[in-house]
Amino acid sequence: MNAALEYLKTNQSRFIDELCDYVRFPSVSAQQEHRPDMEACARWIASQCENIGLDTAIHQTKGHPIVVASTPAKHANSKPHFLVYGHYDVQPPDPLDLWRTPPFEPRIQGRSLFGRGASDNKGQHLAHLKAVEAMLRTGTELPCHLTFVIEGEEEVGSRNLAEFLTANKSQLRCNAVVVSDTGMPAPGMPALTYALRGVAAIEVKVTGPNRDLHSGIFGGSLENPAMALCQLLASVRDKNGRIRIPGFYDDVKALTAFERRQLARLPFNAREYARFLGVPALFGEKGYTAWEQRTARPTFEINGLTSGYQGEGSKTIIPSTATAKITLRLVPNQDPERVTRLVCDYLKKACPKTVRLELKTGHGGQPYLFSPTSPLATAALAALETAFGKKPVLLREGGSIPIVTDFKRILGADTLMLGLALPDDNAHSPNEKFDLDNFAAGMRMGVHLWPALAKACSSVS
Amino acid sequence: MNAALEYLKTNQSRFIDELCDYVRFPSVSAQQEHRPDMEACARWIASQCENIGLDTAIHQTKGHPIVVASTPAKHANSKPHFLVYGHYDVQPPDPLDLWRTPPFEPRIQGRSLFGRGASDNKGQHLAHLKAVEAMLRTGTELPCHLTFVIEGEEEVGSRNLAEFLTANKSQLRCNAVVVSDTGMPAPGMPALTYALRGVAAIEVKVTGPNRDLHSGIFGGSLENPAMALCQLLASVRDKNGRIRIPGFYDDVKALTAFERRQLARLPFNAREYARFLGVPALFGEKGYTAWEQRTARPTFEINGLTSGYQGEGSKTIIPSTATAKITLRLVPNQDPERVTRLVCDYLKKACPKTVRLELKTGHGGQPYLFSPTSPLATAALAALETAFGKKPVLLREGGSIPIVTDFKRILGADTLMLGLALPDDNAHSPNEKFDLDNFAAGMRMGVHLWPALAKACSSVS
Repeated sequence: MNAALEYLKTNQSRFIDELCDYVRFPSVSAQQEHRPDMEACARWIASQCENIGLDTAIHQTKGHPIVVASTPAKHANSKPHFLVYGHYDVQPPDPLDLWRTPPFEPRIQGRSLFGRGASDNKGQHLAHLKAVEAMLRTGTELPCHLTFVIEGEEEVGSRNLAEFLTANKSQLRCNAVVVSDTGMPAPGMPALTYALRGVAAIEVKVTGPNRDLHSGIFGGSLENPAMALCQLLASVRDKNGRIRIPGFYDDVKALTAFERRQLARLPFNAREYARFLGVPALFGEKGYTAWEQRTARPTFEINGLTSGYQGEGSKTIIPSTATAKITLRLVPNQDPERVTRLVCDYLKKACPKTVRLELKTGHGGQPYLFSPTSPLATAALAALETAFGKKPVLLREGGSIPIVTDFKRILGADTLMLGLALPDDNAHSPNEKFDLDNFAAGMRMGVHLWPALAKACSSVS
Repeated sequence: MNAALEYLKTNQSRFIDELCDYVRFPSVSAQQEHRPDMEACARWIASQCENIGLDTAIHQTKGHPIVVASTPAKHANSKPHFLVYGHYDVQPPDPLDLWRTPPFEPRIQGRSLFGRGASDNKGQHLAHLKAVEAMLRTGTELPCHLTFVIEGEEEVGSRNLAEFLTANKSQLRCNAVVVSDTGMPAPGMPALTYALRGVAAIEVKVTGPNRDLHSGIFGGSLENPAMALCQLLASVRDKNGRIRIPGFYDDVKALTAFERRQLARLPFNAREYARFLGVPALFGEKGYTAWEQRTARPTFEINGLTSGYQGEGSKTIIPSTATAKITLRLVPNQDPERVTRLVCDYLKKACPKTVRLELKTGHGGQPYLFSPTSPLATAALAALETAFGKKPVLLREGGSIPIVTDFKRILGADTLMLGLALPDDNAHSPNEKFDLDNFAAGMRMGVHLWPALAKACSSVS
């Protein structure tokens, strides 16, 4: 292991040069004009894999190709198998005039490498690849079989990944997936993200009169659908920020005392956070911290309201209809279908009979939880601590990462999210950068991670 | 008086021909191309006035001319003075393809005269003019001074009338104004409209974060402005339909037992009314009938809602802002300014401190009430009863009629609204018609009205 770590140190500047080469590809998956760049980029990362001895293939899809690279066959026998997921596509660099230097001409300043895709996600999965290179080149024992899956459509919704996973299920069956595509809350604070929120969408439409009516002639003698909608939605949440829908919290897995202690370690300053959001004061479910509220508690969020007159001045009508776009954020172990049904039942019951109610349910996504005290998590945390020289924190993510639920659903595999991005890395924004200390620590993490994870697997089985 | 009534009978078919001539002018005030038609129409009605001996003038305005015609000077001395208001302009006839015969080619079918403007308002004020013709031509004593004010901009907001009234205040000072431009609830049910609702407009804007935020990453830790707006507006009205704003009802003049008895005489069928509105069931303030709710009770009406995402599908954001357009309908003796202040005070107090609130107040209009038991009202009701041979009903109007409040404000005069339109007259719609029985009854009403009103004035003074 020391030889591998030494190899990483010795070759650091070459690795940085290689990351610069990687960032130079304008691999913007959303833009048709970059199709040749996408293919060239896929070939480049594939050749990187090949050069260190991985069995590499470029899988064509209906969209952009997926690069798959595995450790040689001898590793495959009876050893644990882990997937490493990454994506070589990047966000469009617009608006270009806000970049201090061109997005696809990498520039190093201090310990930051600036360029589109440096942090999201080229630098992060390249660190994993370089760790494997170090182990293979120095003859360090890699006690597991590894498969890199590097797709080119993450920024456009991973629209061909699920089909690829399904088609190659047996080859991809694994003990766990490792993804470095999330973040660390602060420099020197490595993190394992172990839970995600799910989502469910509902559109609520209230119809009153069959046309907009004169509010003078008729107003007072019929329900106003906009008022009915407001009263209906208002009734959903009490003043303590709790959702009043019967059964809504039934399946919520409560945070353990351990988790709450871990979340309490995260840096937080209420005044700064309120200033960052631009709100006069914070608000959330009583009894929970802001970190808990936005990652470990379910929500009922109004995303949009539409009714009647929206132009200048006033128009004295009783609008015929009023609609609201709603999304729920769900937490383990809430089931999107079941909770959607509870919400719809409540709305139907609570809606006055003086208007008509239509509900349209949209796409849902499962929440995700991987026990932060499981052997694999413990092993990953140990690898993080050794690599960074700091005690890692445990994170939950308030959003959803569909690929993680895809890995679970299709491959039955849990995902360890070991993100290397910093809050100021400007992912999806101008002047994206990647921290070179995190690049180096990410490589060290790889060297420590595989033996630890392999050991955890064998101790379990 | 009998001579005058006989004259009306004898000349009925000529009057109908004259109404047809009047309707033939496409006097659409909203459309610039009809400017010559407007002028020709004004000249036509002015010559009608002149022919029967009225002192007639066509007043130019910034818009369309106003025709003013007064009984000869001898009437002006020490007799009561009444204004008769009407308008020779009409609504645009569109959509033309829904008319069974062309809008400006009058057609008589049964007792209906079809044509744009027949009911609104040419037929109604022509009836008044014909009554005066009958009295003057038959030497029947007209015990008062009369001034016809027939404007050409009622359908575009009477935008030059207030200035005209102000400039000619001394000439127009009068004991009351008579307007036949409202409706009767059913055939054979003559009506005096004695009250109007006022109006006040408020725009409510709630701002949360300073940009739309990702509902996954941040949702739960800050107030959603759309939810804050819904809860704020929802709190305004209780489940009995009563506005919960302190002081809101303080100045409401309660309906007298007499008024409630009168309103109870009006035809009403809840099922038919709900079907007409297109609602599954009616709703309104508890303790009041639908007629009372929509004419004699104040309301808080949401005219529009706007927030966040309004496109197809869903967008997982916490919107930065949410706005509502509100209008209040006010009843005697509520003051728009005072009630607007009460509403704003309430909203400011009720709005959570976790969002910012902006309120923008718009144009207000005073409610109007003319005592239905006053000597003038009693006299008008008697004239209606004699002319129609039916006991008249007392009506309140839920909307606002700005000219009535202008007459009160500028001339200090009350208005008697003695409408001749039927609910199925299709005012503002294709196939507008005027009932020829009402045309005839309207003329008879005129013959009875002026002596009765004059007598009421002298008994008061």
